Amino acid sequence: MNIKITGSGSYIPANIERNEDFHNHEFLNSDGSTINAPNEIIVKKFKAITGIDERRYAKNHLNTSDIASFAAEKAIEDANINREELDYIIVAHNYGDVRSDSQQSDTVPSIASRVKHLLRIKNPKCVGYDLLFGCPGWIEGVIQANAFIKSGIAKKCLVIGAETLSRVIDPHDRDSMIYSDGAGAVIVESTQDNKSGIITHESATFALDEAHFIYFGETNNQEIKDNRRYIKMYGRKIYEFALNNVPLAMKSCLDKSEIDISDVKKILIHQANEKMDEAIVKRFYELYNMEMPEGIMPMSIGKLGNSSVATIPTLYDMIIKDNFENQNINKGDIIIFASVGAGMNINAIVYKH
Amino acid sequence: MNIKITGSGSYIPANIERNEDFHNHEFLNSDGSTINAPNEIIVKKFKAITGIDERRYAKNHLNTSDIASFAAEKAIEDANINREELDYIIVAHNYGDVRSDSQQSDTVPSIASRVKHLLRIKNPKCVGYDLLFGCPGWIEGVIQANAFIKSGIAKKCLVIGAETLSRVIDPHDRDSMIYSDGAGAVIVESTQDNKSGIITHESATFALDEAHFIYFGETNNQEIKDNRRYIKMYGRKIYEFALNNVPLAMKSCLDKSEIDISDVKKILIHQANEKMDEAIVKRFYELYNMEMPEGIMPMSIGKLGNSSVATIPTLYDMIIKDNFENQNINKGDIIIFASVGAGMNINAIVYKH
Repeated sequence: MNIKITGSGSYIPANIERNEDFHNHEFLNSDGSTINAPNEIIVKKFKAITGIDERRYAKNHLNTSDIASFAAEKAIEDANINREELDYIIVAHNYGDVRSDSQQSDTVPSIASRVKHLLRIKNPKCVGYDLLFGCPGWIEGVIQANAFIKSGIAKKCLVIGAETLSRVIDPHDRDSMIYSDGAGAVIVESTQDNKSGIITHESATFALDEAHFIYFGETNNQEIKDNRRYIKMYGRKIYEFALNNVPLAMKSCLDKSEIDISDVKKILIHQANEKMDEAIVKRFYELYNMEMPEGIMPMSIGKLGNSSVATIPTLYDMIIKDNFENQNINKGDIIIFASVGAGMNINAIVYKH
Repeated sequence: MNIKITGSGSYIPANIERNEDFHNHEFLNSDGSTINAPNEIIVKKFKAITGIDERRYAKNHLNTSDIASFAAEKAIEDANINREELDYIIVAHNYGDVRSDSQQSDTVPSIASRVKHLLRIKNPKCVGYDLLFGCPGWIEGVIQANAFIKSGIAKKCLVIGAETLSRVIDPHDRDSMIYSDGAGAVIVESTQDNKSGIITHESATFALDEAHFIYFGETNNQEIKDNRRYIKMYGRKIYEFALNNVPLAMKSCLDKSEIDISDVKKILIHQANEKMDEAIVKRFYELYNMEMPEGIMPMSIGKLGNSSVATIPTLYDMIIKDNFENQNINKGDIIIFASVGAGMNINAIVYKH
């Protein structure tokens, strides 16, 4: 028995927020002090580091659970399965439904229950739960689905990554330009096809010193006296942490698979920040004394920003459906999925398409 | 290989909120109208239905992750394991860390990462994630730990249920008197002991009509114009739903185990509401044409209220440690764990101690 992805879907929100749309923001340092540069320069520098030109925001009336259900609907159709046969709906997210007019996260009922409701699935044996694991949540969901299938308690699982980060960003923080909204979903099934599927996986939580590298903090504008909090991060610390640990985790996962590095056709890495992602993959190849092959790591971040748990399933779906220029995945290709994010969590999957 | 609970711990918050403490509340109906009864009568009626005399609130400076770590620390000690050998930290909750001075849920980093940080666990291979599954989250965490161990990706898991519902209650809602704070934790391990452990389990999500029976809604006091939301429920609908579905889920789980109903020594049911819990267990026995045996269902709700995911592990810990009057669990005893809650989710485990 092999366990593989048999269908995928994604939802890319309609509203495009361009870098120019931030030109009128009042950006401040985290200590509240003024940044000694005009916004045009700040935004240009931001683009040079992150690779982000534009990002997507969900329309005001849509929440994480809505866009999750849109992506799920497409994945179910793509896998051509009867939705009533699903054993699990696993939704990875981090903030739940944050309505556009509210600062509160709404997680009761779970996003998985809301998605199941929106998908009109009747079967009570289809169990829905939410998984909070930072940005690597979607990969972790696939790893959990894999475990459920292996242990005999499931055959077909729907694994979704969905987030509306536009609802938790501080407009006075330059980092707010990184974040985006989106949803991606896959169907993970046991199949008779013994030649493809999940080969190895690896997960880790670094929490001793790193737990609070990404956190919930107040606005950089100290004149605002409410205690509302937003997504915040120590970018430099994360960069160093990721560079030191993600390549090793990817190597550990690949070495367990006994697949040769030269057989890896594609690396789908969490779209966190272009420069950081490139540095991670370059260092991964350095561990094998190799240069990073051209085109090995498709990047969607320029147009789609960082939508947390949604970046990898969305990227996968775009490539598989031939909606990504100059990128494709063919039968038998070895893919590495890899992610790093809040927790700090890291994970990877070596997968044969 | 059998999979069993090898240690437990709980944290019962120090602040006691008695029924009398609600006498000065302004309770209103959900439509904002006045309740035609003095508070003394409202509270008395409440006590008659729910069985609740008093409940526990965490001190202001403590959050869900803190009390989760207190319970976890005790479970690790009780199981006498090296914490660095843990493969998973699974934290079931529903609202994350809600600071006493904030209306926002803080779930980044995950509560599991915070707990791991507080436990000073170094090993990165100890993976921490949060599981959102309504009140049945802790049982579901045990079921997931069981699957991870069976599938070969884990040997030792820490499963915690922790919640501070006192931070999400509407003071104008009579139902606010139900909710409580607490944390319970267990270590789940594979053991050589083939005579005890998890025998069967059962999970279900009813989301077609039931998804929003427990939800996030505004205060009953319509003069308050903020859009802050609180835990809310349709009590009557939940009662009927639970009575129709929980006994059947318990029966399905017990029948799969092929254990005779007369061999069941204890039912540890989620402490939701005394009258509802009794009606569920009575109906469960009716399905076997039996009367409910006396003392079969220990109830902690009178003194501890409904602390969501924490009620069952706390109750288990109290009985196992001989801190529960007239109740004990002996070697070889068959126990049924059962829960129902937001989602609407239901689950059960048949377990041999």
